[in-house]
Amino acid sequence: MILENISSNKVCEGWHKQYTHNSKVLNCEMRFAIFLPPQASANNPVPVLYWLSGLTCSDENFMQKAGAQKMAAKLGVAIVAPDTSPRGEDVADDINKAYDLGLGAGFYINATQAPWNKHYQMYDYIVHELPALIETNFPVTTQRAISGHSMGGHGALTIGLRNPELYQSISAFSPICNPINCPWGEKAFSAYLGTDSEDWKIYDSCELLAKTTSHQPILIDQGSNDSFLQTQLKPENLMAIANKKNSLLTLNMREGYDHSYYFISSFIDSHLEFHAAHLGLTQQS
Amino acid sequence: MILENISSNKVCEGWHKQYTHNSKVLNCEMRFAIFLPPQASANNPVPVLYWLSGLTCSDENFMQKAGAQKMAAKLGVAIVAPDTSPRGEDVADDINKAYDLGLGAGFYINATQAPWNKHYQMYDYIVHELPALIETNFPVTTQRAISGHSMGGHGALTIGLRNPELYQSISAFSPICNPINCPWGEKAFSAYLGTDSEDWKIYDSCELLAKTTSHQPILIDQGSNDSFLQTQLKPENLMAIANKKNSLLTLNMREGYDHSYYFISSFIDSHLEFHAAHLGLTQQS
Repeated sequence: MILENISSNKVCEGWHKQYTHNSKVLNCEMRFAIFLPPQASANNPVPVLYWLSGLTCSDENFMQKAGAQKMAAKLGVAIVAPDTSPRGEDVADDINKAYDLGLGAGFYINATQAPWNKHYQMYDYIVHELPALIETNFPVTTQRAISGHSMGGHGALTIGLRNPELYQSISAFSPICNPINCPWGEKAFSAYLGTDSEDWKIYDSCELLAKTTSHQPILIDQGSNDSFLQTQLKPENLMAIANKKNSLLTLNMREGYDHSYYFISSFIDSHLEFHAAHLGLTQQS
Repeated sequence: MILENISSNKVCEGWHKQYTHNSKVLNCEMRFAIFLPPQASANNPVPVLYWLSGLTCSDENFMQKAGAQKMAAKLGVAIVAPDTSPRGEDVADDINKAYDLGLGAGFYINATQAPWNKHYQMYDYIVHELPALIETNFPVTTQRAISGHSMGGHGALTIGLRNPELYQSISAFSPICNPINCPWGEKAFSAYLGTDSEDWKIYDSCELLAKTTSHQPILIDQGSNDSFLQTQLKPENLMAIANKKNSLLTLNMREGYDHSYYFISSFIDSHLEFHAAHLGLTQQS
């Protein structure tokens, strides 16, 4: 696969770079961003944190607004931020251009229903195609962690829980914890997966955590003043299952914080340190 | 003057807030943003760093992309980010909607020429009207520092140098150091101030530094890979004067960095620490 580099910015002694490539899985051209810390070299490959963004976002929101590069550079971890859906004129979108279905709203699942199934295979893209591309083309190891925000928090939790052998640790900010029981999830899953809600369960963190036999460390931060907390996010549903199973899940309720990147930037360092500890890294300066 | 609060986000245990107000000086409604660190209270007012943004920016770019809140919260300094020009349908803009004249390009000067002089009085707004508003309505002291980027770096340098009694310290990222000798400055100053370049000198950092008798501390960071460095920014012109006068000017050339917020976010902590030291603050955690 051919990568085209479309931007480069030095940041915190490392590099932020954007690339485009033709995705076989998604059947379209995709863009992603990577932060390579100063430690990364052919002789010193570094682990990768995959960051999955929320509704309406691209690869740029996290890289521009989270302020993650300083700590990632200290710890020596690369960060890869993919887009949130397939893109292009040929790619189906919601007929009303809603923000929560179609472009910018891939929900990190493999769609089975027309017209979505032609391109919306974000699960396979994130779990298989993109890491293969990253591990072939950049000075990184095959060690992976995964994190994300809101819809991307749902993506991180479900992808991490379904693939414990691939991800050392999982974290999320303000994740959609129980998509089969909230309006965002019900709308997207019925469109992408059809109306039989049995088919939705493989993309629901609560269902997955209830069934998993692995004990992955999971860190969640949630703002108490998040306007989506009660109707869409429902961390209490996930926490109830975690408590019953003695899962390694820490949920930090953060008083007064909202759903924005101001919240993420306030606590991103602690998530990077959490992943670094489970990836065997220690702060280098 | 009446302030209307239009947004609030908790960030790093402090608050980011946006306000609108009617500006007498600019003769239009203006928006600004303020970051209040957790230490700020009526019993414990904190000093203020004014941040002046570059061409095309609003109050939002710095607050969203610089990652300054973490260190500002540690140090206990408020940050105020004004807009970069007067705004509104009634406000003159460049007939070609150029990015470097008119809206988003106020250059922090008082325009004397029609049609600009009706609204473009950014110098008076930044030096007088806005600080009076801030000091009346928020738990801050009258201690001020000033910083900015590109056009805003020019603003910080010129405003700081002309008002040593008002600003304890001055810093800038990638500033336009000698606007009377570069295309951006020549275009804007001839429009706003007329064609007699003698009238431009009160807004030129090199002219002001050459004449000042005060010894303010000045910190400048400049990326070596900045595409505007040679044609527009010219820090070497300012440095030559500083060297001749033994000014307290530090210019850090940063190898490989460009003109973007990725550069600013990489070094903003050191600018905050520089200002805090001159404001008599020390890191509190």
